[in-house]
Amino acid sequence: MTGAEILIRALIAGRVEVCFTNPGTSEMHIVAALDRASEIRCVLGLFEGVVTGAADGYARMAGKSACTLLHLGPGLANGLANLHNASRAHVPIVNIVGQHATHHLKYDTPLASDIEAIARPYSKWLRTSQSAADINRDANDAMVAANTPPGQIATLIVPADVAWNGVSAGESDMRNSFSFPIAPMPGAEKIEKAGDMLRSGLRTAILLADKGLYGKGLAAAGRIAAGTNAKLLAPYPFTRMERGAGFPVVERMHYVLEQAAEQLKEFRQIILVGATVPVSYFAYPGKNSVLTPPECLLHTLASPHEDCADALDALATALSLDERSSVPAQAERVPVPTGEITPQGLAAAVAALLPENAIVVDESMTSGRGLMAATRGCPRHDWLANTGGSVGIAMPLAVGAAVACPDRRVLCFSADGSGMYTAQALWTMARENLNITTVIFANRSYAVLKREYSSLGVGEPGRRAADLFDIGRPDLDWVSLAKGMGVPGTRVTTLDTFVKALQEGFQAEGPMLIEVRL
Amino acid sequence: MTGAEILIRALIAGRVEVCFTNPGTSEMHIVAALDRASEIRCVLGLFEGVVTGAADGYARMAGKSACTLLHLGPGLANGLANLHNASRAHVPIVNIVGQHATHHLKYDTPLASDIEAIARPYSKWLRTSQSAADINRDANDAMVAANTPPGQIATLIVPADVAWNGVSAGESDMRNSFSFPIAPMPGAEKIEKAGDMLRSGLRTAILLADKGLYGKGLAAAGRIAAGTNAKLLAPYPFTRMERGAGFPVVERMHYVLEQAAEQLKEFRQIILVGATVPVSYFAYPGKNSVLTPPECLLHTLASPHEDCADALDALATALSLDERSSVPAQAERVPVPTGEITPQGLAAAVAALLPENAIVVDESMTSGRGLMAATRGCPRHDWLANTGGSVGIAMPLAVGAAVACPDRRVLCFSADGSGMYTAQALWTMARENLNITTVIFANRSYAVLKREYSSLGVGEPGRRAADLFDIGRPDLDWVSLAKGMGVPGTRVTTLDTFVKALQEGFQAEGPMLIEVRL
Repeated sequence: MTGAEILIRALIAGRVEVCFTNPGTSEMHIVAALDRASEIRCVLGLFEGVVTGAADGYARMAGKSACTLLHLGPGLANGLANLHNASRAHVPIVNIVGQHATHHLKYDTPLASDIEAIARPYSKWLRTSQSAADINRDANDAMVAANTPPGQIATLIVPADVAWNGVSAGESDMRNSFSFPIAPMPGAEKIEKAGDMLRSGLRTAILLADKGLYGKGLAAAGRIAAGTNAKLLAPYPFTRMERGAGFPVVERMHYVLEQAAEQLKEFRQIILVGATVPVSYFAYPGKNSVLTPPECLLHTLASPHEDCADALDALATALSLDERSSVPAQAERVPVPTGEITPQGLAAAVAALLPENAIVVDESMTSGRGLMAATRGCPRHDWLANTGGSVGIAMPLAVGAAVACPDRRVLCFSADGSGMYTAQALWTMARENLNITTVIFANRSYAVLKREYSSLGVGEPGRRAADLFDIGRPDLDWVSLAKGMGVPGTRVTTLDTFVKALQEGFQAEGPMLIEVRL
Repeated sequence: MTGAEILIRALIAGRVEVCFTNPGTSEMHIVAALDRASEIRCVLGLFEGVVTGAADGYARMAGKSACTLLHLGPGLANGLANLHNASRAHVPIVNIVGQHATHHLKYDTPLASDIEAIARPYSKWLRTSQSAADINRDANDAMVAANTPPGQIATLIVPADVAWNGVSAGESDMRNSFSFPIAPMPGAEKIEKAGDMLRSGLRTAILLADKGLYGKGLAAAGRIAAGTNAKLLAPYPFTRMERGAGFPVVERMHYVLEQAAEQLKEFRQIILVGATVPVSYFAYPGKNSVLTPPECLLHTLASPHEDCADALDALATALSLDERSSVPAQAERVPVPTGEITPQGLAAAVAALLPENAIVVDESMTSGRGLMAATRGCPRHDWLANTGGSVGIAMPLAVGAAVACPDRRVLCFSADGSGMYTAQALWTMARENLNITTVIFANRSYAVLKREYSSLGVGEPGRRAADLFDIGRPDLDWVSLAKGMGVPGTRVTTLDTFVKALQEGFQAEGPMLIEVRL
């Protein structure tokens, strides 16, 4: 067996079923091994930001590690921005990155680079495999690292000769038995203290992240909230939230500093579950980054590395709150709106039509701030947000979510500015015929920057600054862009046509794009 | 003055005239300073790979340092792949990268990252500015570093508070007097030895890079070649070559290992001028990476850090070769071809029509290998190649070259695969109304990988591997993609329509795209 074949064999043993990739010459032996491995589906992206963003979306929804195959340092570099987001999402990703053959590196050829240095900022685990005899162990270690709670990025660099060299039986330990680490429970005193806080009668919020926002963790949080009158909050950037009718209501924190501070003002206590101390997204001159009032008591029930779901469950038990005490969101379908396009109208249209079990991917930036509130009573669905703030994640994330959940409808919200970073994802949607409806809110500007300019106290932008926020010169034509990548698209200018387009999108076999002109 | 204003003032003093940028919240005070600085033209890219690739193209043609402004770690990360190419091109680039305010960093907010670690792999000089009082010195140091021969990447990280804090007169040394380092001449013994080699009568090649390929260096190389019968070669990846009728003929080395080895077989001696030992681009099992026969003597006349042009001039003088001894390429215009599209026909069409003073940007990959040979006798022009092998440089490079040389026509060759990495450059072409004719060779495949698969001895690709080389499912429609970004486009399927489209493109005011269906 070649090193490449051993690698793929180990990945399969580690339950890897999909490889998101954009390979090059130095990865051809790995491609050859994938060619013979029907257990792994290869999903090609035409740009590596699509590859890593899709891996993130897959890992969020599949609940297991995603795998990428990338070409040398530049291929990895192109994927870094969405790995930044993935590192903040705490998802398990194994990156396989090709390298020149070991004997070739000394020549410092054009494509040579320090791949370990490029990988290090976002890799919690990092290794260059040294020989084909080592690669089984290396792949095993990479998968264990990726699956170390709460989920990490592990990068395994594979020199071309390590991939092409053969290993005979006996030369390598070929065992693949994985015991992925389990998140530890927080200490009993943390649960006791949280219980005391909730019994105190002081106004309390529970700030939930990671596994506190879906499944067993969210259910326990719902019982606690209902039984104690605590409010459930999620950070503005969160990985995955299960929501809709029947699920506990979790309010997302605001992005804008003043609004977020206002939102937290009433709380005397905040219990953190997988979340960190609430602070402003950016710093502003003369403003405090910390969002909570000085007298607010913060208590960490579970750190991101501890078991958030079991911690919440234990807390509910300690408070004697059983299943019946939950007060979930009520089912509510608003009527289909009509008329001019407004932010409220767009949110109402989504709320009126969102299919059961949909996965919503949200990078709508300034245009879609009302979407979550409006969809609270919709049929059950998942909501995925941008965890790291690097824009250009929505369409790649949607690709990964759709690959992970082929039976579910994905609704992807992107702004025109953020969408342009990784629009190549549309091509992968078409190629894989993924059931993704992409909505582009086209306001033809970096609207968030216009507002930030003012928030930072810089004053009114002059002509040259305003020009840098204006992406409508020339106008982006998203219907043409989508057509160029094989995705049918339509442009809407009224709520009526938006509603019709959404309905068509949800019924379509495969992807569709809707450009909403704002 | 704010730190941001001092920074921009220093950049202006350092002759920075253009800032390629995609800014974000943390750079808003720098944007505000740019807003008030009419000396610097801001060129917006919708993706940072466009920004850094354009900076490279600008620096190659403007002959002075380019400047970028990027948003935090992810913005820099998105620009890394083309910085990889720029680092191999030895061009001076000053990257300004925003960072969170220093007091905000401790909260490890979503967009926080180790920007220095992200910058380090491709930055020869790197610093985080610590205060507004330091930033004048920091900007000066960055520019000196960027302009240190042969040209380097310098990255200055500017925390938001360093940009927004004010400095009063006397708090900071505000002097801006730049003395950029000059490349040293190689030692006299190196020139003597090269002279001896050329007088020996042994078959000799001179492998030229950097400043050996244009201007004074190339002229001297031409005299040496004519007077000694040495052959002038360029590496496959080169930064800039001046060529056409009246210029010395320089043969580009082949990409394919066997062809390159064949090309070098006849030489008993190779003199390296800014170039390194010729080796294969990639390693292949059982093949030697070194392309020269063991008996071939290699001599470095000038390292990349030494003055290639003056070294060549000194060598020509030592050989008593004056201006008259040069034998330049003869002017030759082939007739306009007609009929079916073939690689030879496409090259002939370009050769028949290339305007005088054109700048050709070439990332045509497998489809355009005959272009250089065919255009040897065209009117004078410059040729820019991909120096680092990270694909997706052509269109950004064309943007930068066109900004640097508004009076020259830019002809940009891209493949469909490579073009998709940074196609957002088309939007900047439209926005700035740049005179760029982009030709996309659309073979609907990663053709280079198909060939590499075979060269690596992996055998015939099976269905799953072949699928990863096939980017024609679905077809990319480049005319729609261009339209989506405001660039008029046309699709051609015969040489006659290609010729007509090229003629239109060369006469157009602003950009145009031609998709050549192969």
